[in-house]
Amino acid sequence: MNRSAYYVGDQTFVVKEADPVPPGPGQVRIEVAYTGICGTDLHIAHGAMDQRVQRPAVIGHEMSGRIAELGAGVEGHRVGDPVTVMPLDWCGDCPACRAGHTHICHRLNFVGIDSPGAMQQSWTVPARILVPLPEGLSLAHAALVEPTAVAVHDVRRSRLAAGEHAVVIGAGPVGLLIGTVARTTGAQVTVLELDPRRRQLAADLGLSAVDPATVDVAGYVHEVTGGAGAEVVYEVSGSAAGVRTATDLLAVRGRLVVVAIHPAPREVDLHRIFWRELEVIGVRVYERADYVEAVRLVHGGQVPVDRLISRIVPLTEVAQAFEALATGGDVKVLIDCGGDA
Amino acid sequence: MNRSAYYVGDQTFVVKEADPVPPGPGQVRIEVAYTGICGTDLHIAHGAMDQRVQRPAVIGHEMSGRIAELGAGVEGHRVGDPVTVMPLDWCGDCPACRAGHTHICHRLNFVGIDSPGAMQQSWTVPARILVPLPEGLSLAHAALVEPTAVAVHDVRRSRLAAGEHAVVIGAGPVGLLIGTVARTTGAQVTVLELDPRRRQLAADLGLSAVDPATVDVAGYVHEVTGGAGAEVVYEVSGSAAGVRTATDLLAVRGRLVVVAIHPAPREVDLHRIFWRELEVIGVRVYERADYVEAVRLVHGGQVPVDRLISRIVPLTEVAQAFEALATGGDVKVLIDCGGDA
Repeated sequence: MNRSAYYVGDQTFVVKEADPVPPGPGQVRIEVAYTGICGTDLHIAHGAMDQRVQRPAVIGHEMSGRIAELGAGVEGHRVGDPVTVMPLDWCGDCPACRAGHTHICHRLNFVGIDSPGAMQQSWTVPARILVPLPEGLSLAHAALVEPTAVAVHDVRRSRLAAGEHAVVIGAGPVGLLIGTVARTTGAQVTVLELDPRRRQLAADLGLSAVDPATVDVAGYVHEVTGGAGAEVVYEVSGSAAGVRTATDLLAVRGRLVVVAIHPAPREVDLHRIFWRELEVIGVRVYERADYVEAVRLVHGGQVPVDRLISRIVPLTEVAQAFEALATGGDVKVLIDCGGDA
Repeated sequence: MNRSAYYVGDQTFVVKEADPVPPGPGQVRIEVAYTGICGTDLHIAHGAMDQRVQRPAVIGHEMSGRIAELGAGVEGHRVGDPVTVMPLDWCGDCPACRAGHTHICHRLNFVGIDSPGAMQQSWTVPARILVPLPEGLSLAHAALVEPTAVAVHDVRRSRLAAGEHAVVIGAGPVGLLIGTVARTTGAQVTVLELDPRRRQLAADLGLSAVDPATVDVAGYVHEVTGGAGAEVVYEVSGSAAGVRTATDLLAVRGRLVVVAIHPAPREVDLHRIFWRELEVIGVRVYERADYVEAVRLVHGGQVPVDRLISRIVPLTEVAQAFEALATGGDVKVLIDCGGDA
């Protein structure tokens, strides 16, 4: 049987069992090991995306597992292979796809939001979205390949280079991953975070962690960069204050990477953008190269994702996990879907 | 004698004669032929920059002329050579200069704003800011090399390529120059402009000119780009509406170049920047390569600057010229400083 957690609306999940979906041509069925809860999943659970998410919905897109069954015509994969998925399914035919930017397809199907996701034991997906994992990589750690790929994409788009100084505004899971990925480039990284527990975690990860409520951040960055400012700022807080701080901190020709989702327009200091010839760079999800690099970094330990996993809960307790994540000090919560036996 | 126009405050100019300034070591004295009036000069005349401009002030930085006298140690120039200047004098020692971005030096002296400018017969400047002009290039046309260099810089920073579609919001002198420079790359260019005379001028220059008050601009750009959107938008209007329109029009991975100066923060659609992975690119003045290219484009006629010159007035009538430019339909007004005899 396949046990699945269904989001039915208003922070409510129902766990039900049904027959597994047999893989059709070009598809595979995965026994899911772990599925992480992402900020977007939290938004969905709180009803913020009810217009987009068809309920009842199995959500979840940060996952790991092993192939359990191959559909007709699937090549290059074997039953038992450890895998994750890059949860993007594009049309191949819109202007974005034709320009080669398939990950921001005009009609993108984000698997786990727009179609069924991984918060279940048994998940059937197109083989083309599989990403192979190396044997020896913990499947719990592998569930963090997806958010690590986000960070890899963001750092790559920022063109951060060795010797440069980067500031990360906001030390949630994505901010912490950006910080650790940024450090692998040889850059110096400062993290700004109001929450003392998250600041401590950033410091435990070896990042300079500063409290913007008590430290003059502009003065601090001025000092550590010899008056130049930071070459790159990642805005991961989603706050108006974060956007304002970001432009203040940047060096001439600095790059502001807009990672957080700002649903409403924000006031931006366009004069500063002119005066210092700044760039603002939009980033969304990842491309396959980012996934390949994320697997390498997680497997090699350069990105110590184990430090971000604060809790692993069984699939039957998914509702409590969402509730705890929304209110408490958890960083990354994984759902144990049973496939890591 | 040297006749000079002094800005003394509150839209008032006083024309006076004095001895020419002899060139010191490393300097040259130029007999000025023409000096154009720039939007920044208008701001200065209206008192908007009185905190920065030390009065009485000779302003002006769009110019052409011939070398009249060489100071000690000046090499590579001869009396009689036609020249313009790149009016930037940098410290060479700040973080921006050390990073190679001298044109946005932290302590930039913008010649003609922060130090005496070209609205005079005889102008003494450091030889290092000279830009040689080819014989045979009209000195009246050469006075537009500086704003053309602005356009070249903006188009270069946008990475506009042949076959792409660019939209220019605002068809003042800089907008029109950006449009014509953009066209030389092989891109398709649409200009948005509310004023019918400026729209007509854009059309006369061979650019598609659209009235955003009567045309559904998003629909228009959607149609002419096959649903993709524009790869590049240049925001030259300085308006909140221009910024809003810009993000709406851009294709996936499109670039918004912030050309106009927005003194106050503007609301920017950061969600769209995320969703389409847009870039916002700040641009300020130019680098020497932009000047070299601007001289080539003006000399070769690819940028028909003569079409932008609506009036040439004698130095004694500078006050009236500023007044006419502020209120009327002029595009580019040149001051005849007497050196084109």
